[in-house]
Amino acid sequence: MKHIYTGKTKNVYELEDGNYLLEFKDDVTGVDGVFDPGANTVGLTIEGAGLAGLKLTKYFFELLNEKGIPTHFIEADIDKKTMKVKPAETFGKGLEVICRFRAVGSFLRRYGLYAQEGQPLDAFVEVTIKDDEREDPPISEDALDMLGILSKAEYKVLKELTQKIAGIVKEELAKKGIELYDIKFEFGRDKETNEIMLIDEISGGNMRAYKNGEYIEPLELEKLILEG
Amino acid sequence: MKHIYTGKTKNVYELEDGNYLLEFKDDVTGVDGVFDPGANTVGLTIEGAGLAGLKLTKYFFELLNEKGIPTHFIEADIDKKTMKVKPAETFGKGLEVICRFRAVGSFLRRYGLYAQEGQPLDAFVEVTIKDDEREDPPISEDALDMLGILSKAEYKVLKELTQKIAGIVKEELAKKGIELYDIKFEFGRDKETNEIMLIDEISGGNMRAYKNGEYIEPLELEKLILEG
Repeated sequence: MKHIYTGKTKNVYELEDGNYLLEFKDDVTGVDGVFDPGANTVGLTIEGAGLAGLKLTKYFFELLNEKGIPTHFIEADIDKKTMKVKPAETFGKGLEVICRFRAVGSFLRRYGLYAQEGQPLDAFVEVTIKDDEREDPPISEDALDMLGILSKAEYKVLKELTQKIAGIVKEELAKKGIELYDIKFEFGRDKETNEIMLIDEISGGNMRAYKNGEYIEPLELEKLILEG
Repeated sequence: MKHIYTGKTKNVYELEDGNYLLEFKDDVTGVDGVFDPGANTVGLTIEGAGLAGLKLTKYFFELLNEKGIPTHFIEADIDKKTMKVKPAETFGKGLEVICRFRAVGSFLRRYGLYAQEGQPLDAFVEVTIKDDEREDPPISEDALDMLGILSKAEYKVLKELTQKIAGIVKEELAKKGIELYDIKFEFGRDKETNEIMLIDEISGGNMRAYKNGEYIEPLELEKLILEG
């Protein structure tokens, strides 16, 4: 296999069968040693974060595949901290799609004039461009279409998939008495079928979850969901 | 009449007949003495800027009213540098609506990963929140609706009006060999009819215009359009 990319939280290898292998690292995004799922930099290394991330991702992707929701997931090897995935084409140079159930993070930083911290949001979906240099700017449906990144028809699918998947995660967390505030996804086009599918991961590092009003750290979240 | 508001580029007075009087100042937005229509601060004072802004605004608002496009304009008094307008209710605490024909300014700062400077844009419309503290963040149709600022039906009207008015201004400028790159509008609801109408002004301070590839300063633009 061939190493093709070193990401902030994962290494990516190309396999001989045409699929890809994602190796989960213990690095998580954040700023100055404080975890922040919305951050663009590796803020800290948490021993066990990679394994916890992979376990949760495996759990959720298997659940989604059972429900017939397209994802890139093929299989996971917990011991090796790797996940085998189908090849995907990203939208442009990559987008992040956020689904928000409560106002926190960058939503509040942008719209604090109209929103209170923690106020309920109706599965609100927004898209940001993956562009570290320009701090991941939000982008509208019209701009995505105009710049040739995503057609209007694709945007509709993306938004529906996002709300559906976020709803499933929210429901799973609720079973453990945990409330999902927001979650970030990445999508791509299946290289074989061109179908839009969920890629990347679903882990504590991609969401903000609270229990009894207290924020839950990614590692703790994995324990609560898988062992709790 | 009663002074009710001191804006960056205008003073606002309430008249006894229920209408409002806008007094145009010579202050223009910008940073460190350099004019920038997208800036949030008064960058400099240009003698004659207020008068030039009022003259252009009168010219365009009269043209729009002739074409049956709703605006708040009633009449202008060039000598007093004032304009009488109908009362309007802003959307939330105020929105700015931008129509872009070429990629410059904040569009390029945000989407430079996908756009070249000066690249044609198809009368692209975006909305930003008037919020100096948070640097006028862009906001999507979905967020405007969710936060109760603007309904989806109103957004549709706003976008159509914006493209229509920007198209008229673009055409007027083209008659003088000038190309409109982008323009910023403000809208409000007519307090009597609840109809969405154009408010504020249309002047050199709200647009970027170029002639033979050279940017035209606001005062020069007024001369080229009204005297050229």
